[in-house]
Amino acid sequence: MSESRPLPPLPDGAPWPELLPGWVWLCGAGPGDPGLLTLHALNALAQADAIVHDALVNPEILRLARPGAELIAAGKRGGRPSARQEDISLRLVALAREGRRVLRLKGGDPFVFGRGGEEGEVLAAHAIPFRIIPGISAGIGGLAYAGIPVTHRAHNQAVTFVTGHDARGEPPGSVDWAAVAQGSGVIVIYMGMKHIGAIAERLIAAGRGADEPVAVVTEATLPGQRVLETTLARAGADVAASGLQAPAIICVGGTVGLRAVLAWQGANPAERGDG
Amino acid sequence: MSESRPLPPLPDGAPWPELLPGWVWLCGAGPGDPGLLTLHALNALAQADAIVHDALVNPEILRLARPGAELIAAGKRGGRPSARQEDISLRLVALAREGRRVLRLKGGDPFVFGRGGEEGEVLAAHAIPFRIIPGISAGIGGLAYAGIPVTHRAHNQAVTFVTGHDARGEPPGSVDWAAVAQGSGVIVIYMGMKHIGAIAERLIAAGRGADEPVAVVTEATLPGQRVLETTLARAGADVAASGLQAPAIICVGGTVGLRAVLAWQGANPAERGDG
Repeated sequence: MSESRPLPPLPDGAPWPELLPGWVWLCGAGPGDPGLLTLHALNALAQADAIVHDALVNPEILRLARPGAELIAAGKRGGRPSARQEDISLRLVALAREGRRVLRLKGGDPFVFGRGGEEGEVLAAHAIPFRIIPGISAGIGGLAYAGIPVTHRAHNQAVTFVTGHDARGEPPGSVDWAAVAQGSGVIVIYMGMKHIGAIAERLIAAGRGADEPVAVVTEATLPGQRVLETTLARAGADVAASGLQAPAIICVGGTVGLRAVLAWQGANPAERGDG
Repeated sequence: MSESRPLPPLPDGAPWPELLPGWVWLCGAGPGDPGLLTLHALNALAQADAIVHDALVNPEILRLARPGAELIAAGKRGGRPSARQEDISLRLVALAREGRRVLRLKGGDPFVFGRGGEEGEVLAAHAIPFRIIPGISAGIGGLAYAGIPVTHRAHNQAVTFVTGHDARGEPPGSVDWAAVAQGSGVIVIYMGMKHIGAIAERLIAAGRGADEPVAVVTEATLPGQRVLETTLARAGADVAASGLQAPAIICVGGTVGLRAVLAWQGANPAERGDG
Protein backbone atom coordinates (compact mmCIF):
# COMPACT_ATOMS: atom_id res chain seq x y z
CA MET A 1 0.00 0.00 0.00
CA SER A 2 1.32 3.43 -0.82
CA GLU A 3 2.51 5.56 2.06
CA SER A 4 0.33 8.42 0.93
CA ARG A 5 -2.80 6.60 1.95
CA PRO A 6 -2.14 4.47 5.01
CA LEU A 7 -4.92 2.74 6.86
CA PRO A 8 -5.18 2.60 10.62
CA PRO A 9 -3.89 -0.56 12.20
CA LEU A 10 -6.56 -3.20 12.56
CA PRO A 11 -7.23 -4.39 16.08
CA ASP A 12 -4.73 -6.88 17.41
CA GLY A 13 -2.45 -6.05 14.53
CA ALA A 14 -4.38 -8.20 12.07
CA PRO A 15 -3.32 -7.50 8.51
CA TRP A 16 -5.66 -5.78 6.10
CA PRO A 17 -7.03 -8.22 3.53
CA GLU A 18 -4.82 -8.54 0.48
CA LEU A 19 -6.39 -8.26 -2.96
CA LEU A 20 -4.62 -11.17 -4.60
CA PRO A 21 -3.91 -11.53 -8.32
CA GLY A 22 -6.80 -13.32 -9.99
CA TRP A 23 -9.34 -12.18 -7.43
CA VAL A 24 -12.29 -9.83 -7.83
CA TRP A 25 -13.62 -7.68 -5.01
CA LEU A 26 -17.20 -6.50 -5.53
CA CYS A 27 -17.29 -3.29 -3.58
CA GLY A 28 -19.81 -0.56 -2.81
CA ALA A 29 -18.51 3.00 -3.01
CA GLY A 30 -21.45 4.53 -1.15
CA PRO A 31 -23.67 7.36 -2.37
CA GLY A 32 -20.91 9.79 -3.37
CA ASP A 33 -19.23 11.59 -0.47
CA PRO A 34 -15.72 10.07 -0.31
CA GLY A 35 -16.02 10.20 3.48
CA LEU A 36 -18.66 7.49 3.25
CA LEU A 37 -16.21 5.02 1.76
CA THR A 38 -15.45 2.13 4.06
CA LEU A 39 -11.95 1.31 5.18
CA HIS A 40 -12.20 -1.92 3.20
CA ALA A 41 -13.05 0.09 0.09
CA LEU A 42 -10.08 2.35 0.64
CA ASN A 43 -7.89 -0.69 1.15
CA ALA A 44 -9.22 -2.08 -2.13
CA LEU A 45 -8.58 1.15 -4.03
CA ALA A 46 -5.01 1.15 -2.76
CA GLN A 47 -4.33 -2.34 -4.13
CA ALA A 48 -6.35 -2.88 -7.29
CA ASP A 49 -4.60 -2.70 -10.64
CA ALA A 50 -7.87 -2.87 -12.58
CA ILE A 51 -10.94 -0.97 -11.39
CA VAL A 52 -14.20 -1.59 -13.22
CA HIS A 53 -16.50 1.18 -12.06
CA ASP A 54 -20.07 2.33 -12.56
CA ALA A 55 -20.89 5.75 -13.96
CA LEU A 56 -22.50 6.44 -10.60
CA VAL A 57 -19.17 6.27 -8.77
CA ASN A 58 -17.94 9.77 -7.87
CA PRO A 59 -14.82 10.59 -9.94
CA GLU A 60 -13.34 12.07 -6.77
CA ILE A 61 -13.40 8.59 -5.31
CA LEU A 62 -11.61 7.14 -8.32
CA ARG A 63 -8.82 9.63 -7.67
CA LEU A 64 -8.09 7.62 -4.51
CA ALA A 65 -7.04 4.68 -6.68
CA ARG A 66 -3.49 3.39 -6.67
CA PRO A 67 -1.35 5.33 -9.12
CA GLY A 68 -1.20 3.40 -12.37
CA ALA A 69 -4.40 1.46 -11.80
CA GLU A 70 -6.41 0.95 -14.97
CA LEU A 71 -9.85 2.57 -14.69
CA ILE A 72 -12.52 0.87 -16.77
CA ALA A 73 -15.91 2.55 -17.06
CA ALA A 74 -18.66 -0.04 -17.20
CA GLY A 75 -21.61 1.83 -15.88
CA LYS A 76 -25.17 2.17 -16.82
CA ARG A 77 -27.36 5.05 -15.75
CA GLY A 78 -31.01 5.54 -15.06
CA GLY A 79 -33.49 3.74 -17.26
CA ARG A 80 -31.20 2.56 -20.01
CA PRO A 81 -31.30 -1.04 -21.12
CA SER A 82 -28.99 -3.36 -19.27
CA ALA A 83 -27.99 -5.63 -22.12
CA ARG A 84 -24.37 -5.19 -21.17
CA GLN A 85 -24.64 -6.72 -17.68
CA GLU A 86 -23.40 -10.07 -18.92
CA ASP A 87 -20.55 -8.34 -20.75
CA ILE A 88 -19.50 -6.59 -17.56
CA SER A 89 -19.48 -9.85 -15.64
CA LEU A 90 -17.43 -11.59 -18.30
CA ARG A 91 -15.01 -8.68 -18.37
CA LEU A 92 -14.40 -9.26 -14.67
CA VAL A 93 -13.72 -12.93 -15.39
CA ALA A 94 -11.28 -12.06 -18.16
CA LEU A 95 -9.38 -9.55 -16.05
CA ALA A 96 -9.09 -12.01 -13.19
CA ARG A 97 -7.82 -14.71 -15.54
CA GLU A 98 -5.11 -12.30 -16.67
CA GLY A 99 -3.92 -12.33 -13.07
CA ARG A 100 -5.08 -8.81 -12.36
CA ARG A 101 -6.12 -7.57 -8.92
CA VAL A 102 -9.66 -6.57 -9.86
CA LEU A 103 -11.89 -4.13 -8.03
CA ARG A 104 -15.49 -3.91 -9.20
CA LEU A 105 -16.63 -0.60 -7.75
CA LYS A 106 -20.32 0.21 -7.67
CA GLY A 107 -22.30 3.16 -6.46
CA GLY A 108 -24.08 2.52 -3.17
CA ASP A 109 -24.11 -1.11 -2.07
CA PRO A 110 -23.51 -3.99 -4.49
CA PHE A 111 -26.40 -6.04 -3.08
CA VAL A 112 -29.05 -3.27 -3.02
CA PHE A 113 -30.34 -2.95 -6.58
CA GLY A 114 -26.70 -3.20 -7.60
CA ARG A 115 -26.56 -6.53 -9.44
CA GLY A 116 -23.67 -7.64 -7.29
CA GLY A 117 -25.39 -10.98 -6.86
CA GLU A 118 -25.52 -11.55 -10.59
CA GLU A 119 -21.85 -10.67 -11.00
CA GLY A 120 -20.93 -12.93 -8.10
CA GLU A 121 -22.83 -15.79 -9.70
CA VAL A 122 -20.89 -15.39 -12.95
CA LEU A 123 -17.59 -15.22 -11.08
CA ALA A 124 -18.46 -18.34 -9.12
CA ALA A 125 -19.49 -20.16 -12.30
CA HIS A 126 -16.05 -19.41 -13.72
CA ALA A 127 -14.27 -20.38 -10.52
CA ILE A 128 -13.00 -16.83 -9.92
CA PRO A 129 -12.55 -16.17 -6.20
CA PHE A 130 -14.22 -13.03 -4.94
CA ARG A 131 -15.06 -10.98 -1.89
CA ILE A 132 -18.04 -8.71 -1.18
CA ILE A 133 -17.47 -5.30 0.40
CA PRO A 134 -20.76 -3.67 1.38
CA GLY A 135 -21.27 0.05 0.91
CA ILE A 136 -23.59 2.71 2.23
CA SER A 137 -26.75 2.54 0.15
CA ALA A 138 -28.06 5.87 -1.12
CA GLY A 139 -31.52 4.95 0.10
CA ILE A 140 -30.23 5.12 3.66
CA GLY A 141 -27.16 7.37 3.64
CA GLY A 142 -28.33 9.72 0.93
CA LEU A 143 -31.57 10.34 2.77
CA ALA A 144 -29.66 10.85 6.02
CA TYR A 145 -27.78 13.72 4.37
CA ALA A 146 -31.19 15.24 3.60
CA GLY A 147 -32.20 14.87 7.26
CA ILE A 148 -34.60 11.99 6.63
CA PRO A 149 -34.45 8.84 8.75
CA VAL A 150 -35.88 5.78 7.04
CA THR A 151 -37.22 4.56 10.38
CA HIS A 152 -38.49 6.42 13.42
CA ARG A 153 -40.50 4.83 16.21
CA ALA A 154 -43.20 7.48 16.00
CA HIS A 155 -43.73 6.80 12.30
CA ASN A 156 -42.91 3.28 11.15
CA GLN A 157 -41.73 -0.15 12.15
CA ALA A 158 -41.10 -1.21 8.55
CA VAL A 159 -39.46 0.40 5.54
CA THR A 160 -39.54 -0.93 2.00
CA PHE A 161 -36.87 -0.32 -0.62
CA VAL A 162 -38.22 -0.76 -4.12
CA THR A 163 -36.99 -0.12 -7.63
CA GLY A 164 -38.98 2.33 -9.73
CA HIS A 165 -38.28 0.72 -13.05
CA ASP A 166 -37.62 -2.74 -14.40
CA ALA A 167 -35.01 -3.97 -16.84
CA ARG A 168 -36.93 -2.36 -19.71
CA GLY A 169 -37.18 1.00 -17.95
CA GLU A 170 -40.89 0.54 -17.19
CA PRO A 171 -42.52 0.65 -13.76
CA PRO A 172 -42.02 -2.84 -12.42
CA GLY A 173 -45.19 -4.79 -13.07
CA SER A 174 -44.24 -7.43 -10.57
CA VAL A 175 -44.26 -4.99 -7.66
CA ASP A 176 -47.47 -5.19 -5.63
CA TRP A 177 -47.68 -1.46 -4.97
CA ALA A 178 -50.85 -1.84 -2.94
CA ALA A 179 -49.16 -4.28 -0.56
CA VAL A 180 -46.09 -2.07 -0.33
CA ALA A 181 -48.34 0.90 0.44
CA GLN A 182 -50.06 -1.02 3.22
CA GLY A 183 -47.02 -2.77 4.62
CA SER A 184 -44.55 0.01 5.20
CA GLY A 185 -44.97 3.48 6.64
CA VAL A 186 -41.90 4.60 4.73
CA ILE A 187 -41.16 3.66 1.12
CA VAL A 188 -37.80 4.37 -0.49
CA ILE A 189 -37.80 4.27 -4.28
CA TYR A 190 -34.60 3.76 -6.26
CA MET A 191 -34.50 4.81 -9.92
CA GLY A 192 -38.02 6.14 -9.58
CA MET A 193 -37.84 9.63 -11.00
CA LYS A 194 -39.20 8.77 -14.45
CA HIS A 195 -42.30 7.04 -13.14
CA ILE A 196 -42.90 8.82 -9.85
CA GLY A 197 -46.26 10.17 -10.99
CA ALA A 198 -47.61 6.74 -11.88
CA ILE A 199 -46.17 5.20 -8.72
CA ALA A 200 -47.68 7.93 -6.54
CA GLU A 201 -51.08 7.31 -8.12
CA ARG A 202 -50.87 3.63 -7.24
CA LEU A 203 -49.88 4.40 -3.67
CA ILE A 204 -52.79 6.82 -3.28
CA ALA A 205 -55.15 4.29 -4.82
CA ALA A 206 -53.95 1.82 -2.19
CA GLY A 207 -54.89 4.19 0.60
CA ARG A 208 -51.90 6.44 1.17
CA GLY A 209 -52.77 10.08 1.76
CA ALA A 210 -52.62 12.43 -1.19
CA ASP A 211 -50.89 14.98 1.03
CA GLU A 212 -48.37 12.52 2.39
CA PRO A 213 -44.88 14.02 2.21
CA VAL A 214 -42.42 12.99 -0.47
CA ALA A 215 -38.77 13.94 -0.83
CA VAL A 216 -36.74 13.63 -4.01
CA VAL A 217 -32.99 13.82 -3.43
CA THR A 218 -30.50 14.19 -6.27
CA GLU A 219 -26.72 14.14 -6.03
CA ALA A 220 -27.20 12.89 -2.50
CA THR A 221 -24.25 13.52 -0.15
CA LEU A 222 -22.43 15.59 -2.82
CA PRO A 223 -21.93 19.35 -2.88
CA GLY A 224 -24.66 19.62 -5.54
CA GLN A 225 -27.24 17.77 -3.45
CA ARG A 226 -30.78 19.02 -4.00
CA VAL A 227 -33.91 18.07 -2.11
CA LEU A 228 -37.38 18.58 -3.51
CA GLU A 229 -40.16 18.29 -0.95
CA THR A 230 -43.59 17.58 -2.34
CA THR A 231 -46.61 15.35 -1.72
CA LEU A 232 -47.90 12.18 -3.30
CA ALA A 233 -50.57 14.10 -5.20
CA ARG A 234 -48.14 16.65 -6.58
CA ALA A 235 -45.01 14.51 -6.95
CA GLY A 236 -45.32 13.77 -10.66
CA ALA A 237 -45.92 17.37 -11.68
CA ASP A 238 -43.41 18.83 -9.25
CA VAL A 239 -40.62 16.51 -10.36
CA ALA A 240 -41.37 17.27 -14.01
CA ALA A 241 -41.30 21.01 -13.32
CA SER A 242 -38.22 20.88 -11.12
CA GLY A 243 -35.65 20.19 -13.77
CA LEU A 244 -34.05 17.66 -11.43
CA GLN A 245 -32.07 14.97 -13.22
CA ALA A 246 -31.91 11.27 -12.44
CA PRO A 247 -30.54 9.45 -10.57
CA ALA A 248 -32.51 10.30 -7.49
CA ILE A 249 -33.59 8.70 -4.27
CA ILE A 250 -37.26 9.20 -3.45
CA CYS A 251 -38.73 8.81 0.02
CA VAL A 252 -42.44 8.60 0.77
CA GLY A 253 -43.73 8.77 4.33
CA GLY A 254 -44.01 10.67 7.56
CA THR A 255 -40.29 10.69 8.29
CA VAL A 256 -39.83 13.12 5.40
CA GLY A 257 -41.40 15.74 7.66
CA LEU A 258 -38.57 15.29 10.18
CA ARG A 259 -36.31 17.16 7.77
CA ALA A 260 -37.50 20.40 9.32
CA VAL A 261 -35.72 19.40 12.51
CA LEU A 262 -33.09 16.92 11.41
CA ALA A 263 -31.58 18.51 8.29
CA TRP A 264 -28.10 19.06 9.60
CA GLN A 265 -26.23 20.05 6.46
CA GLY A 266 -25.43 23.74 6.48
CA ALA A 267 -25.99 23.88 10.23
CA ASN A 268 -22.24 24.27 10.71
CA PRO A 269 -21.41 27.96 10.21
CA ALA A 270 -18.07 27.02 8.70
CA GLU A 271 -19.83 24.81 6.16
CA ARG A 272 -22.20 27.64 5.27
CA GLY A 273 -19.21 29.83 4.56
CA ASP A 274 -20.42 32.52 6.95
CA GLY A 275 -18.54 31.60 10.09
CA MET B 1 -5.62 14.10 14.43
CA SER B 2 -3.03 11.73 15.79
CA GLU B 3 -0.27 10.69 13.43
CA SER B 4 -0.87 7.05 14.20
CA ARG B 5 -4.16 7.08 12.32
CA PRO B 6 -4.00 9.44 9.36
CA LEU B 7 -6.76 9.65 6.81
CA PRO B 8 -6.19 9.87 3.09
CA PRO B 9 -6.32 13.34 1.63
CA LEU B 10 -9.78 14.31 0.52
CA PRO B 11 -10.14 15.22 -3.14
CA ASP B 12 -9.03 18.73 -4.03
CA GLY B 13 -7.34 18.99 -0.66
CA ALA B 14 -10.60 19.70 1.16
CA PRO B 15 -10.17 19.41 4.91
CA TRP B 16 -11.82 16.61 6.82
CA PRO B 17 -14.77 17.88 8.87
CA GLU B 18 -13.78 19.07 12.30
CA LEU B 19 -15.72 17.84 15.30
CA LEU B 20 -16.07 21.14 17.13
CA PRO B 21 -16.51 21.57 20.89
CA GLY B 22 -20.19 21.58 21.74
CA TRP B 23 -21.16 19.49 18.74
CA VAL B 24 -22.56 15.95 18.61
CA TRP B 25 -21.96 13.61 15.71
CA LEU B 26 -24.49 10.78 15.48
CA CYS B 27 -22.52 8.07 13.76
CA GLY B 28 -23.09 4.51 12.63
CA ALA B 29 -20.28 2.06 13.32
CA GLY B 30 -21.55 -0.61 10.95
CA PRO B 31 -22.26 -4.23 11.79
CA GLY B 32 -18.98 -5.03 13.54
CA ASP B 33 -16.02 -5.56 11.21
CA PRO B 34 -13.80 -2.49 11.76
CA GLY B 35 -13.12 -2.52 8.01
CA LEU B 36 -16.74 -1.51 7.49
CA LEU B 37 -16.26 1.75 9.33
CA THR B 38 -16.53 4.76 7.08
CA LEU B 39 -13.76 7.30 6.75
CA HIS B 40 -16.04 9.85 8.41
CA ALA B 41 -16.45 7.49 11.37
CA LEU B 42 -12.71 7.04 11.64
CA ASN B 43 -12.28 10.81 11.47
CA ALA B 44 -14.83 11.15 14.26
CA LEU B 45 -13.11 8.55 16.45
CA ALA B 46 -9.83 10.40 16.03
CA GLN B 47 -11.29 13.69 17.30
CA ALA B 48 -14.00 12.94 19.87
CA ASP B 49 -13.21 13.46 23.53
CA ALA B 50 -16.47 11.85 24.66
CA ILE B 51 -17.81 8.76 22.93
CA VAL B 52 -21.27 7.55 23.94
CA HIS B 53 -21.55 4.09 22.47
CA ASP B 54 -24.07 1.29 22.21
CA ALA B 55 -23.37 -2.16 23.57
CA LEU B 56 -23.61 -3.36 19.99
CA VAL B 57 -20.49 -1.46 18.96
CA ASN B 58 -17.53 -3.81 18.59
CA PRO B 59 -14.96 -3.10 21.33
CA GLU B 60 -12.27 -3.44 18.70
CA ILE B 61 -13.73 -0.35 17.05
CA LEU B 62 -13.62 1.58 20.30
CA ARG B 63 -9.90 0.86 20.44
CA LEU B 64 -9.58 3.17 17.42
CA ALA B 65 -10.66 6.10 19.59
CA ARG B 66 -8.34 8.99 20.30
CA PRO B 67 -6.15 8.21 23.30
CA GLY B 68 -7.71 9.77 26.36
CA ALA B 69 -11.23 9.90 24.96
CA GLU B 70 -13.88 9.14 27.55
CA LEU B 71 -15.87 6.04 26.62
CA ILE B 72 -19.43 6.04 27.92
CA ALA B 73 -21.50 2.88 27.53
CA ALA B 74 -25.13 3.74 26.88
CA GLY B 75 -26.36 0.73 25.04
CA LYS B 76 -29.41 -1.38 25.18
CA ARG B 77 -29.56 -4.87 23.84
CA GLY B 78 -32.19 -7.09 22.36
CA GLY B 79 -35.63 -6.98 23.81
CA ARG B 80 -34.97 -4.98 26.94
CA PRO B 81 -37.10 -1.97 27.74
CA SER B 82 -35.88 1.30 26.32
CA ALA B 83 -36.86 3.58 29.17
CA ARG B 84 -33.40 5.08 29.11
CA GLN B 85 -33.59 6.52 25.60
CA GLU B 86 -34.50 9.96 26.89
CA ASP B 87 -31.66 9.77 29.40
CA ILE B 88 -29.20 8.98 26.64
CA SER B 89 -30.35 11.93 24.56
CA LEU B 90 -30.11 14.29 27.53
CA ARG B 91 -26.64 12.96 28.32
CA LEU B 92 -25.58 13.99 24.83
CA VAL B 93 -27.01 17.45 25.45
CA ALA B 94 -25.16 17.77 28.75
CA LEU B 95 -21.84 16.66 27.28
CA ALA B 96 -22.18 19.12 24.40
CA ARG B 97 -22.98 21.91 26.82
CA GLU B 98 -19.78 21.12 28.69
CA GLY B 99 -18.00 21.96 25.45
CA ARG B 100 -17.05 18.38 24.71
CA ARG B 101 -16.53 17.01 21.21
CA VAL B 102 -19.19 14.33 21.39
CA LEU B 103 -19.43 11.22 19.27
CA ARG B 104 -22.59 9.14 19.61
CA LEU B 105 -21.56 5.81 18.15
CA LYS B 106 -24.24 3.29 17.29
CA GLY B 107 -24.15 -0.20 15.84
CA GLY B 108 -25.20 -0.31 12.18
CA ASP B 109 -26.79 2.89 10.89
CA PRO B 110 -28.27 5.53 13.19
CA PHE B 111 -31.40 5.93 11.04
CA VAL B 112 -32.21 2.22 10.55
CA PHE B 113 -33.93 1.10 13.75
CA GLY B 114 -31.24 3.08 15.54
CA ARG B 115 -33.21 5.91 17.16
CA GLY B 116 -30.86 8.44 15.64
CA GLY B 117 -33.87 10.50 14.63
CA GLU B 118 -35.09 10.68 18.20
CA GLU B 119 -31.70 11.72 19.49
CA GLY B 120 -31.39 14.32 16.75
CA GLU B 121 -34.76 15.74 17.69
CA VAL B 122 -33.68 16.17 21.30
CA LEU B 123 -30.41 17.79 20.25
CA ALA B 124 -32.25 20.19 17.96
CA ALA B 125 -34.74 21.04 20.68
CA HIS B 126 -31.82 22.00 22.89
CA ALA B 127 -30.07 23.93 20.11
CA ILE B 128 -27.11 21.54 20.05
CA PRO B 129 -25.56 21.42 16.58
CA PHE B 130 -25.11 17.94 15.17
CA ARG B 131 -24.09 15.93 12.15
CA ILE B 132 -25.29 12.54 10.93
CA ILE B 133 -22.77 9.96 9.73
CA PRO B 134 -24.49 6.99 8.13
CA GLY B 135 -23.17 3.48 8.71
CA ILE B 136 -23.48 0.10 7.06
CA SER B 137 -26.67 -1.45 8.36
CA ALA B 138 -26.41 -5.06 9.50
CA GLY B 139 -29.48 -5.92 7.46
CA ILE B 140 -27.49 -5.21 4.30
CA GLY B 141 -23.82 -5.61 5.17
CA GLY B 142 -24.25 -8.40 7.67
CA LEU B 143 -26.23 -10.44 5.20
CA ALA B 144 -23.64 -9.72 2.49
CA TYR B 145 -21.01 -11.37 4.71
CA ALA B 146 -23.27 -14.41 4.77
CA GLY B 147 -23.46 -14.39 0.96
CA ILE B 148 -27.05 -13.14 0.86
CA PRO B 149 -28.03 -10.20 -1.38
CA VAL B 150 -31.14 -8.38 -0.22
CA THR B 151 -32.11 -7.79 -3.84
CA HIS B 152 -31.56 -9.84 -6.98
CA ARG B 153 -33.41 -9.31 -10.23
CA ALA B 154 -34.38 -12.96 -10.47
CA HIS B 155 -36.01 -12.86 -7.05
CA ASN B 156 -37.34 -9.48 -5.94
CA GLN B 157 -37.82 -5.85 -6.84
CA ALA B 158 -38.64 -4.86 -3.29
CA VAL B 159 -37.17 -5.61 0.11
CA THR B 160 -38.69 -4.74 3.47
CA PHE B 161 -36.75 -4.09 6.65
CA VAL B 162 -38.88 -4.60 9.71
CA THR B 163 -38.34 -4.74 13.45
CA GLY B 164 -39.23 -7.98 15.18
CA HIS B 165 -40.24 -6.43 18.46
CA ASP B 166 -41.68 -3.19 19.71
CA ALA B 167 -40.66 -0.98 22.61
CA ARG B 168 -42.13 -3.52 25.06
CA GLY B 169 -40.28 -6.43 23.49
CA GLU B 170 -43.43 -7.85 21.91
CA PRO B 171 -43.97 -8.57 18.20
CA PRO B 172 -44.98 -5.20 16.80
CA GLY B 173 -48.76 -5.14 16.59
CA SER B 174 -48.72 -2.23 14.21
CA VAL B 175 -46.85 -4.16 11.53
CA ASP B 176 -49.17 -5.46 8.82
CA TRP B 177 -47.35 -8.75 8.37
CA ALA B 178 -49.72 -9.88 5.63
CA ALA B 179 -48.98 -6.78 3.56
CA VAL B 180 -45.27 -7.15 4.16
CA ALA B 181 -45.50 -10.79 3.09
CA GLN B 182 -47.25 -9.83 -0.12
CA GLY B 183 -45.28 -6.70 -0.90
CA SER B 184 -41.68 -7.85 -0.74
CA GLY B 185 -39.96 -10.95 -2.02
CA VAL B 186 -37.27 -10.52 0.60
CA ILE B 187 -37.95 -9.55 4.22
CA VAL B 188 -35.15 -8.59 6.60
CA ILE B 189 -36.06 -8.73 10.27
CA TYR B 190 -34.09 -6.82 12.89
CA MET B 191 -34.32 -7.89 16.51
CA GLY B 192 -36.52 -10.78 15.49
CA MET B 193 -34.95 -13.79 17.13
CA LYS B 194 -37.29 -13.94 20.11
CA HIS B 195 -40.46 -13.94 18.04
CA ILE B 196 -39.31 -15.56 14.81
CA GLY B 197 -41.70 -18.48 15.27
CA ALA B 198 -44.74 -16.24 15.59
CA ILE B 199 -43.59 -14.00 12.75
CA ALA B 200 -43.02 -16.97 10.46
CA GLU B 201 -46.51 -18.23 11.19
CA ARG B 202 -47.97 -14.90 10.15
CA LEU B 203 -45.97 -14.85 6.95
CA ILE B 204 -47.10 -18.37 6.07
CA ALA B 205 -50.70 -17.46 6.86
CA ALA B 206 -50.32 -14.56 4.41
CA GLY B 207 -49.29 -16.91 1.65
CA ARG B 208 -45.53 -17.30 1.91
CA GLY B 209 -44.30 -20.84 1.36
CA ALA B 210 -43.68 -22.98 4.42
CA ASP B 211 -40.47 -24.20 2.79
CA GLU B 212 -39.27 -20.72 1.91
CA PRO B 213 -35.64 -20.30 2.95
CA VAL B 214 -34.71 -18.34 6.06
CA ALA B 215 -31.27 -17.37 7.29
CA VAL B 216 -30.44 -16.29 10.82
CA VAL B 217 -27.08 -14.54 11.11
CA THR B 218 -25.46 -13.80 14.44
CA GLU B 219 -22.27 -11.85 15.07
CA ALA B 220 -22.49 -10.79 11.46
CA THR B 221 -19.16 -9.72 9.89
CA LEU B 222 -17.23 -10.75 13.01
CA PRO B 223 -14.95 -13.77 13.42
CA GLY B 224 -17.69 -15.52 15.39
CA GLN B 225 -20.31 -15.08 12.67
CA ARG B 226 -22.77 -17.96 12.47
CA VAL B 227 -25.43 -18.60 9.87
CA LEU B 228 -28.40 -20.85 10.49
CA GLU B 229 -30.29 -21.83 7.35
CA THR B 230 -33.82 -23.01 7.88
CA THR B 231 -37.32 -22.55 6.47
CA LEU B 232 -40.33 -20.55 7.53
CA ALA B 233 -42.02 -23.66 8.87
CA ARG B 234 -39.02 -24.75 10.91
CA ALA B 235 -37.57 -21.36 11.86
CA GLY B 236 -39.05 -21.08 15.34
CA ALA B 237 -37.99 -24.55 16.41
CA ASP B 238 -34.61 -24.43 14.72
CA VAL B 239 -33.68 -21.10 16.30
CA ALA B 240 -34.75 -22.35 19.71
CA ALA B 241 -32.67 -25.51 19.29
CA SER B 242 -29.66 -23.73 17.85
CA GLY B 243 -28.45 -22.00 20.96
CA LEU B 244 -27.85 -18.87 18.89
CA GLN B 245 -27.95 -15.67 20.90
CA ALA B 246 -29.49 -12.32 19.96
CA PRO B 247 -28.81 -9.97 18.35
CA ALA B 248 -29.35 -11.50 14.94
CA ILE B 249 -30.34 -10.46 11.46
CA ILE B 250 -32.96 -12.67 9.89
CA CYS B 251 -33.60 -12.85 6.16
CA VAL B 252 -36.64 -14.49 4.57
CA GLY B 253 -36.83 -15.05 0.83
CA GLY B 254 -35.38 -16.61 -2.26
CA THR B 255 -32.09 -14.76 -2.12
CA VAL B 256 -31.15 -16.81 0.95
CA GLY B 257 -30.65 -19.69 -1.46
CA LEU B 258 -27.93 -17.76 -3.30
CA ARG B 259 -25.66 -18.39 -0.33
CA ALA B 260 -24.70 -21.70 -1.90
CA VAL B 261 -22.97 -19.75 -4.67
CA LEU B 262 -22.25 -16.35 -3.14
CA ALA B 263 -20.92 -17.17 0.33
CA TRP B 264 -17.42 -15.83 -0.11
CA GLN B 265 -16.08 -15.94 3.42
CA GLY B 266 -13.54 -18.69 3.82
CA ALA B 267 -13.05 -18.86 0.06
CA ASN B 268 -9.67 -17.20 0.46
CA PRO B 269 -7.17 -19.97 1.30
CA ALA B 270 -5.17 -17.54 3.43
CA GLU B 271 -8.29 -16.75 5.44
CA ARG B 272 -8.98 -20.44 5.91
CA GLY B 273 -5.53 -20.80 7.34
CA ASP B 274 -4.58 -23.52 4.88
CA GLY B 275 -2.85 -21.51 2.22
